[in-house]
Amino acid sequence: MNTLPISLQKLIQNLQRIPGLGPKSSARIAMYLLKSPIKFTKDLGRIIESFRDEIKYCQICHNLSSTDICPVCDDTKRDKTLICIVEDPLDIVAFEEGTEYQGVYHVLGGVISPVNGVGPEDLTIDDLLKRIRNNVVKELIIATNPNMEGEATAMYIKSGLDKLKILSIKVTRLARGLPTGADLEYADKLTLSRAFEGRTKF
Amino acid sequence: MNTLPISLQKLIQNLQRIPGLGPKSSARIAMYLLKSPIKFTKDLGRIIESFRDEIKYCQICHNLSSTDICPVCDDTKRDKTLICIVEDPLDIVAFEEGTEYQGVYHVLGGVISPVNGVGPEDLTIDDLLKRIRNNVVKELIIATNPNMEGEATAMYIKSGLDKLKILSIKVTRLARGLPTGADLEYADKLTLSRAFEGRTKF
Repeated sequence: MNTLPISLQKLIQNLQRIPGLGPKSSARIAMYLLKSPIKFTKDLGRIIESFRDEIKYCQICHNLSSTDICPVCDDTKRDKTLICIVEDPLDIVAFEEGTEYQGVYHVLGGVISPVNGVGPEDLTIDDLLKRIRNNVVKELIIATNPNMEGEATAMYIKSGLDKLKILSIKVTRLARGLPTGADLEYADKLTLSRAFEGRTKF
Repeated sequence: MNTLPISLQKLIQNLQRIPGLGPKSSARIAMYLLKSPIKFTKDLGRIIESFRDEIKYCQICHNLSSTDICPVCDDTKRDKTLICIVEDPLDIVAFEEGTEYQGVYHVLGGVISPVNGVGPEDLTIDDLLKRIRNNVVKELIIATNPNMEGEATAMYIKSGLDKLKILSIKVTRLARGLPTGADLEYADKLTLSRAFEGRTKF
């Protein structure tokens, strides 16, 4: 018999539906929400209930935004001829925090993944090609994740670009190699071979 | 610059205040809540906002309950002369799921922990002693966690019981030893020495 009050059981069940939260961590979170200041719990509930009402997608780059045009696309200091293609909005956060990138972005909204039933038509690739045709673009940086699905998506985008036959556009990808702080001994074969192929002059 | 909409940033910041959720897992959960069916997100928000309104503490054992007396204490088939003392309500869930225990419980509401500023007066120990004085109790099972704070709390309760001088009460503790599936080779010294001391006839 589960001795917890129904309302608490319902909360734990709902938390468990979130990927990454198992029965134990859901119960722990529920107990924390039960014991923390009532204002925090109520506020969190209200935020979860309403945060989506204020979220739109940027009409240019499909990034999450509170406005029709996101702050990056709206920024006149940003170089609009440089587009970095990413899988999702959190990748943009990582770029903004970790690099000095001054161009703009294009959010695909995922990757091509036949296993999960995601085809090219489910992503914003058509919109990207339209954007390239209608604007002056000098460089496209394809920044999909370095895994099988990310690679396949990059290839698909590349072939779409080739069909456009705009020879003036430079298409680049992020460098592959050893991550900072890595240990050669424990690096996987593919990472090591990519690091070897891409070796640079010292 | 953080390019995420304010409402999403606020959600991520609030999630991060929950122990065990770092910046990355909070962002991942927020993105899941953004993409999942709107009904799920709204429901979860409403549950978090209101679940505490329906939760009380059992007037007898301090377990969480939707009623003044929890279902265990209210169950006439339960043996009221057998009390299992636990730290918190989730321990009761574990007992109910993992054992055939037919007695009742007493929830301490934590453990004595000078580091965290928790003294005996913050727990329900006085209530426990009162409960023992005013009722017929045959056995007390002290089921605090097998760590330093749990041990200290068990010792404190034992000395409180000794002062009551009710010689008819048997006081027991959960067995210490190797957990099922354990590997002798990797067991820590204390666990192994406890398992040796408590060895049973085969």
